[in-house]
Amino acid sequence: METSSQKIVAETIKKMKETDKNRPKTMKYFDEMADLFDKRKKEIIEEKKSGKKVIGYLCLFAPIELILAADAIPVRVNSGWYDASKIGDRVVPVEVCPVIRSTIGAKMVALSPFLENSDAIISVLTCDGMTKLGEILSDYKTVWQMTIPRIKDSDQALQLWNKEITNIKKEIEKLTGNKITRKKLRKAIELTQKATKAFRRLQDLRKGNPVIMGRDAMLAIQTYMWDDIERWTENTNKLCDELENRVKNKNWSTSPDTPKVMITGTPMFWPDNWKVPTLIEEANPQGVIVADELCSNERILNDPVGVDEWTMNDMINAISERYLMASTCPCFSSSDGNEDRINWLITKVKDYKIDGVIYYVVRGCMLYAMEYTRVKKVLDDINVPVYYLDTEYTREDVGQMKTRIEAFLEMLSARKDF
Amino acid sequence: METSSQKIVAETIKKMKETDKNRPKTMKYFDEMADLFDKRKKEIIEEKKSGKKVIGYLCLFAPIELILAADAIPVRVNSGWYDASKIGDRVVPVEVCPVIRSTIGAKMVALSPFLENSDAIISVLTCDGMTKLGEILSDYKTVWQMTIPRIKDSDQALQLWNKEITNIKKEIEKLTGNKITRKKLRKAIELTQKATKAFRRLQDLRKGNPVIMGRDAMLAIQTYMWDDIERWTENTNKLCDELENRVKNKNWSTSPDTPKVMITGTPMFWPDNWKVPTLIEEANPQGVIVADELCSNERILNDPVGVDEWTMNDMINAISERYLMASTCPCFSSSDGNEDRINWLITKVKDYKIDGVIYYVVRGCMLYAMEYTRVKKVLDDINVPVYYLDTEYTREDVGQMKTRIEAFLEMLSARKDF
Repeated sequence: METSSQKIVAETIKKMKETDKNRPKTMKYFDEMADLFDKRKKEIIEEKKSGKKVIGYLCLFAPIELILAADAIPVRVNSGWYDASKIGDRVVPVEVCPVIRSTIGAKMVALSPFLENSDAIISVLTCDGMTKLGEILSDYKTVWQMTIPRIKDSDQALQLWNKEITNIKKEIEKLTGNKITRKKLRKAIELTQKATKAFRRLQDLRKGNPVIMGRDAMLAIQTYMWDDIERWTENTNKLCDELENRVKNKNWSTSPDTPKVMITGTPMFWPDNWKVPTLIEEANPQGVIVADELCSNERILNDPVGVDEWTMNDMINAISERYLMASTCPCFSSSDGNEDRINWLITKVKDYKIDGVIYYVVRGCMLYAMEYTRVKKVLDDINVPVYYLDTEYTREDVGQMKTRIEAFLEMLSARKDF
Repeated sequence: METSSQKIVAETIKKMKETDKNRPKTMKYFDEMADLFDKRKKEIIEEKKSGKKVIGYLCLFAPIELILAADAIPVRVNSGWYDASKIGDRVVPVEVCPVIRSTIGAKMVALSPFLENSDAIISVLTCDGMTKLGEILSDYKTVWQMTIPRIKDSDQALQLWNKEITNIKKEIEKLTGNKITRKKLRKAIELTQKATKAFRRLQDLRKGNPVIMGRDAMLAIQTYMWDDIERWTENTNKLCDELENRVKNKNWSTSPDTPKVMITGTPMFWPDNWKVPTLIEEANPQGVIVADELCSNERILNDPVGVDEWTMNDMINAISERYLMASTCPCFSSSDGNEDRINWLITKVKDYKIDGVIYYVVRGCMLYAMEYTRVKKVLDDINVPVYYLDTEYTREDVGQMKTRIEAFLEMLSARKDF
């Protein structure tokens, strides 16, 4: 399965190169990182030999800065392998969301180098699937659970979450044997702040005429989940340098009147679960993905930890707030629904001049399925077409998905012409 | 739809009478309460006219005692109507759990007298579906949300929940205009304690030879969700009196060697969603349901509020603890999974001498689906067969369900003979 997965990685990158003949040269670095079984895997194994600990996480609420400050390596361990989801069926019923089933399947056959090398897993009890996934993984690995309040804007919610953050800090210190000092934590926060800055620079470049294809930008962003963060930031800045040059030379990745698409919904994990981005950007008529609201992409890096005074207390509070308050995960609600997600979607539609939204939901993903009604309503109000695309971890529906996506893009093109 | 629903109620009760020709006479009261559009509906409308408020709730975490202490009427508003779930499809995708879709559908056509007459709804953010259901209902009704920690056994979890309880108390007082005094709250707690006592008396009677069919006991218990609690308790005690007499006379509802079945999984709501109990008790060979672990049945009443000192503070704390700590809802986890559910299931298997367990899951019910693996494992360990029965809100699969249930019961019978 490792070999076939490497083949899929190579093929997908090849297709990305074919779509943009003039692909940014600095993507080479991210292509290399995209092979999950090569360079980064070897590095992590080497670092473990020298005594470093690896801490895996499933949801974006795991406080990366605390892991880094304890001199450990954070890696996200959700699985995007289709074949692994079939193996997961042996443990959980098939109606369970494939992101969950695939992660279970990957563990069963020891497929993911990041999951395998994790010394502990942070499992945040977000959606129903993730809540129970942590339980199942605890048969194989040390799992640290964190509970999250489903309503954010109350004192008791922030107090609960703050306590969870403080507890996880202790666990990380115990596992690594490294005390998280004020100095180390400040350094870690500054590191992720720089990464967010580089990410935002990339995103700003996607707001104008298409200077990078969506799949390339998405891949670059997603490698943050397992890459060394300092090096990732450096290479993202190099990519931005190249793209800025291209803007100057009006060197576009595709025609500026290509419909601009935003994706929202269930997370999409490299390498297999790249089906929808591939279909959109290889479609006829073509679309270009300029933004997303996925926890597997833009949500990873959008929000910096905002520290005022750099005391330990202030930093911990800032981390708590950043991970809780900034999240647009649909596990949250309020008296006005998941308003943060709605607001962010509307802002993005305007900032990126989105022509249409693909609302992507895999089978069993209840939260995104149920928020669709509300999202559609607000997008209708601002006259932005949205298409509900339901699928599974499978290659078998690519034919009919292509037809559906092309029909949507045709409609978007017609609206642009009109 | 009201007429066809009344017909279903009448037909189901008729079938229950046919299964047990010698059905307890005191079931007459519960049969009357089972017609959702008759006596109780009229009573509630009358009480509203006299100024009483009705407070609906979706999950068992809504603190009934606070509602009663404010002189309001608590009613559970989850829907068991099949046809309503089809209507709900217009608002949420079909992969959403039918309990949720049916409740939405019921609201759309104003079918449920209890939901319609509710002045406010308490929506506790338990599973993903319930979390988003509250949002959708808030388009029609005043909805009060309560967030619940997914891990119970920490100070911060209990603090969060305690604060949620205190807040809901204020909302109830504001809506009703009635202050919840120490005296009134004590009276309310004593009322539900008596109900739990009557319930436990009924359950004890189900531990020996079958003196009541499972469907009858389940219906009696479920009417608690909308009945006047004092009257319900009185009538449950009358039922128990009659059953105790039957025990003395060895007057069994069915042969004592009928396999004893326990149901666990997704809640089952009267009237349509009575399919599985009906199939089990009308099967050939027959099974008798002697216990369940459903939040639509035994979980409603199993745990009393345990007060020490009857101060306001003590009572509020006791209510918090009872609703949080006693729950075996699969939205909870711990370092040992949802251990409270597992432990309760094992205890029940022993107490009720269960021959086999039906694990009932409707499509889209992720939490129960995912906990199956663990439950099966522990039941295997104590050599109790368990059957995973997945279905939908539909009458169409009754044929194949019958075959599956009868095969399971045949196996249980064979094991008993052996």
